[in-house]
Amino acid sequence: MADINSQFDIGVTTGPIRGSRKIHVGKLGVAMREIDLEGGEPSVRVYDTSGPYTDPAAQIDIRKGLPQLRREWQLARGDVEEYAAREVKPEDNGQLGPDRSGGVPAFPNVAKTVLRAKPGANLSQMHYARRGIITPEMEYVAERENLGREFIRREVEGNSWGAAIPEYVTPEFVRDEVARGRAIIPSNVNHPEAEPMAIGRNFLVKINANIGNSAVASDVASEVDKMVWSIRWGADTVMDLSTGRNIHDTREWIIRNSPVPIGTVPIYQALEKVGGIAEDLTWEIFRDTLIEQAEQGVDYFTIHAGVRLPYVPMTAKRVTGIVSRGGSIMAKWCLAHHKESFLYERFDEITEIMKAYDIAYSLGDGLRPGSIADANDEAQFAELYTLGELTKRAWEQDVQVMIEGPGHVPMHKIKENMDKQLESCGEAPFYTLGPLVTDIAPGYDHITSGIGAAMIGWFGTAMLCYVTPKEHLGLPDRDDVKVGVVTYKLAAHAADLAKGHPAAKVRDDALSKARFEFRWRDQFNLSLDPDTAEQYHDQTLPAEGAKTAHFCSMCGPKFCSMKITQEVRDFAAKQNSDSYLAATVPVEDAEAGMEKMSEVYAEKGNELYLPDE
Amino acid sequence: MADINSQFDIGVTTGPIRGSRKIHVGKLGVAMREIDLEGGEPSVRVYDTSGPYTDPAAQIDIRKGLPQLRREWQLARGDVEEYAAREVKPEDNGQLGPDRSGGVPAFPNVAKTVLRAKPGANLSQMHYARRGIITPEMEYVAERENLGREFIRREVEGNSWGAAIPEYVTPEFVRDEVARGRAIIPSNVNHPEAEPMAIGRNFLVKINANIGNSAVASDVASEVDKMVWSIRWGADTVMDLSTGRNIHDTREWIIRNSPVPIGTVPIYQALEKVGGIAEDLTWEIFRDTLIEQAEQGVDYFTIHAGVRLPYVPMTAKRVTGIVSRGGSIMAKWCLAHHKESFLYERFDEITEIMKAYDIAYSLGDGLRPGSIADANDEAQFAELYTLGELTKRAWEQDVQVMIEGPGHVPMHKIKENMDKQLESCGEAPFYTLGPLVTDIAPGYDHITSGIGAAMIGWFGTAMLCYVTPKEHLGLPDRDDVKVGVVTYKLAAHAADLAKGHPAAKVRDDALSKARFEFRWRDQFNLSLDPDTAEQYHDQTLPAEGAKTAHFCSMCGPKFCSMKITQEVRDFAAKQNSDSYLAATVPVEDAEAGMEKMSEVYAEKGNELYLPDE
Repeated sequence: MADINSQFDIGVTTGPIRGSRKIHVGKLGVAMREIDLEGGEPSVRVYDTSGPYTDPAAQIDIRKGLPQLRREWQLARGDVEEYAAREVKPEDNGQLGPDRSGGVPAFPNVAKTVLRAKPGANLSQMHYARRGIITPEMEYVAERENLGREFIRREVEGNSWGAAIPEYVTPEFVRDEVARGRAIIPSNVNHPEAEPMAIGRNFLVKINANIGNSAVASDVASEVDKMVWSIRWGADTVMDLSTGRNIHDTREWIIRNSPVPIGTVPIYQALEKVGGIAEDLTWEIFRDTLIEQAEQGVDYFTIHAGVRLPYVPMTAKRVTGIVSRGGSIMAKWCLAHHKESFLYERFDEITEIMKAYDIAYSLGDGLRPGSIADANDEAQFAELYTLGELTKRAWEQDVQVMIEGPGHVPMHKIKENMDKQLESCGEAPFYTLGPLVTDIAPGYDHITSGIGAAMIGWFGTAMLCYVTPKEHLGLPDRDDVKVGVVTYKLAAHAADLAKGHPAAKVRDDALSKARFEFRWRDQFNLSLDPDTAEQYHDQTLPAEGAKTAHFCSMCGPKFCSMKITQEVRDFAAKQNSDSYLAATVPVEDAEAGMEKMSEVYAEKGNELYLPDE
Repeated sequence: MADINSQFDIGVTTGPIRGSRKIHVGKLGVAMREIDLEGGEPSVRVYDTSGPYTDPAAQIDIRKGLPQLRREWQLARGDVEEYAAREVKPEDNGQLGPDRSGGVPAFPNVAKTVLRAKPGANLSQMHYARRGIITPEMEYVAERENLGREFIRREVEGNSWGAAIPEYVTPEFVRDEVARGRAIIPSNVNHPEAEPMAIGRNFLVKINANIGNSAVASDVASEVDKMVWSIRWGADTVMDLSTGRNIHDTREWIIRNSPVPIGTVPIYQALEKVGGIAEDLTWEIFRDTLIEQAEQGVDYFTIHAGVRLPYVPMTAKRVTGIVSRGGSIMAKWCLAHHKESFLYERFDEITEIMKAYDIAYSLGDGLRPGSIADANDEAQFAELYTLGELTKRAWEQDVQVMIEGPGHVPMHKIKENMDKQLESCGEAPFYTLGPLVTDIAPGYDHITSGIGAAMIGWFGTAMLCYVTPKEHLGLPDRDDVKVGVVTYKLAAHAADLAKGHPAAKVRDDALSKARFEFRWRDQFNLSLDPDTAEQYHDQTLPAEGAKTAHFCSMCGPKFCSMKITQEVRDFAAKQNSDSYLAATVPVEDAEAGMEKMSEVYAEKGNELYLPDE
């Protein structure tokens, strides 16, 4: 099932996800997965972030990177110029230069030239959208969000708290959402390998996985492996949050091989370049880092431009101060220089860079609460207000924006976050980290935050940034990455269900039907993690015959409620289908019908143990 | 840390929970745990369900059982008579009699006599409460719910959706809640070993752990071990749901050694006695089973008296039919006999037994939805309506009642369940199984259900029945039990926090303060699972020195936001405490203050790396 494609010392997991078949739909060949079922049941299509790695027809060579899916569309627009990429300097890989002790070289096929906007042009999807242009990226998104289904009028119920989720997504709908700023399609011109996706309240709720090394742990090979592993299980975007050695090279390996958008926090690399001394950060170093990362193809930048000098004292009485790395770095810089943040002051210059490459803003929540005590405080909302102001400024240049959010928030304070964000930020997509609904369970913070994430996703948050079991304790390994991703997939899906998204309930219904009919393999294959589901089942019932058994070890054959229900229905249906199967039969009629049913049932011998099919 | 107390082949885990000290508070010696902290911080008290097993002063001998904590209080009431217990029959341990192949005998110290009410008496805590009597059980509960704290007026905020959580719990408050039926204290006269606890909306949210064997898996020794293991991690009650061999003996070992109330579903054992043939169940066999279990000391019975004959057809069109074991058994019986459920018809006779021993009803949700598709349907609410009717009937006899609830419910339908239950059942405590907010993640159903549980606990549910990672796949082992318990503890605590329970936030604040100050051991010790938190931390930073390091492997020393925040604060505080620490300083004044601060900061050398304390 899983091949390891190893060159040098980098291995990634390839091969189909158990039970799923890769398909490509429509004229753009939009990638999805189809799960075939037994018993004549229709196949179920599901959204697929895993890229070519799960496509048995794909040739994976991580030294070369993925195919440049979007390159022709980009060139066809006629608004880009090719130019010589900036020289990579040793300090791009950390103050001590690159560390080759792990056996991994720089990416061997770095492009010598890169693309950017011609002078005066603007490559942002929002810019095209506002000019009424439906790009191939928007068409791809529409096909993808519909899961390739035809338009079928279906009764959908839910509570989306005022969102406008369409029954069927048209390319025009996508264009309109992007034009309004209510959705973004993060798609740097220099990351043509990425499969287009949308982040927005009226689309499927998305999730992000964080990877990246630290000075203390991990290496290039592990991080590339984690990226591929995370998208296998469902990460819609990946952020490379590396803060250790080989930052530039790690990112190059990742972007060239990533079918999903990649986000970064450029201030980290800038801080490494100045040896970790926040006060030594300058606009020039930061700007150079933006260009460096833009040329590599980063699709969105977290910019903590809301951490303003006057807001820093508002954190003085907090229990956990400033928990954002970037936020604390900028706070230190502001105080040391007694100056307003250069990110805030130079914001329009940053925007010029964003529009030249089509990089989306992820306006950072540097003052987010890192404890229940600090939730929804003055510092947090002061920053949110500023992020709203900056959103408008970015939109004046048609640059795409999403807004980052908390953090640690008790359940009764979650809705207020959504309401204030909608109010302040013009419906720009919200992208939260959880939130965690209690502080008392380190080791289980994927769960404490999964609760808040499901709720805030339901309320309208467009993307949920995952949290792993290692949160607050250490850097996550690949097992943690998987657990975090699956936890956030289920939270995002629970939100889609509650919002009444037309594409959501199909999967729950198919899985529950499979469960009820004891189609065990179908149940596993339809689940978010078929490997684990089967493994857990097989811990007590490993024999192949158990995969068609009408019980499991929870209850055994005599006590399985689904088995008993099936038997009751089978008999009733055979003998008296009219009154039993009509669920709306009035009580008196039901009793009359069942009397007859009972006579026949007794005649059949009241068998509890039916032979297995 | 953990001793294994092994006799025969039964071992249980003993020894203190890491970082906690057992204490006994007040004249009743109410058991709690205290967590001592470093750095001069006040100790934090937490609610403790682990019983004598974590008390280093206790002598544990599982052949003898726990001390009979409540026996003197019971006898002092003068309303009980002692009589010869019913003879244990072989079929009490399954149709084939007891299975000794596991090496475990019957409990060696079974009492020859048991207690019950004198003729005409009523042992129910509700009966005492309604007569204005404050029992020692109610006093114990009050002390326990206050966590032994003094009354301190504190500002508490939250949203309890109309609950009436007091700032401080008095014995009179407990009496009043029990008298109204809004809380129960499950406390069979024959389970004097149990430490009294309350289940009710205006008390701390409680959790239940399910254990018990099936025909396919597990044995007596494992089940006793699981009971002790589950309460160690926080289970407030335990249900023994055994359906395999040795049902009677397993239960005896469990009850004699359980410091928490024990619940059962008597229909399971009754079904075993008739060889698994539901149609052969009779009232007489069922009644005898109730007496058998009442004499052993079961504190609450799940009775599926709401699965009425006319409701069964309402499940015909469901995706997953009837998923409750007891519900499906009763449905089969009703159809086979074409009669109304004997549980419904004989309800008042069951109530007579309940009042003679003080057993609480857990009115079963036999028609709960087992899939998203079936949530909030006609069958489910028809049963709920009947449970409301039965609640009133039980209350006419002053018998304690709680109401069981779903199941599988998408988020937007959860509140309706709470609202309808409050409306139908006279505010009797609600006791739900999750609910799961999506069906698509078997293997992760502790999480899909933890989300729904946290929400419905916030809305007013009094007890949350846990779900383990093995749900839908197989019988949980002890690792699954722990993960399920900790998940549900965090969900219950998140609900307490959101409701504004005065005792809740203390722990979050203490842990976050420890986190911020890099008191790693304190952070672990304050968490729900100190062992796992430390283990995860040590995976990347095992050295002892790391326990005082101002970073972990997530970010390393240069990027730790909390470390950076600390440095910023330390400098500012030393140089200009007035303007920095005053969080309400106006922007203009802050800027003036910070200019001065910045000058001094530069003078001090802008040191980022402070020597560790």
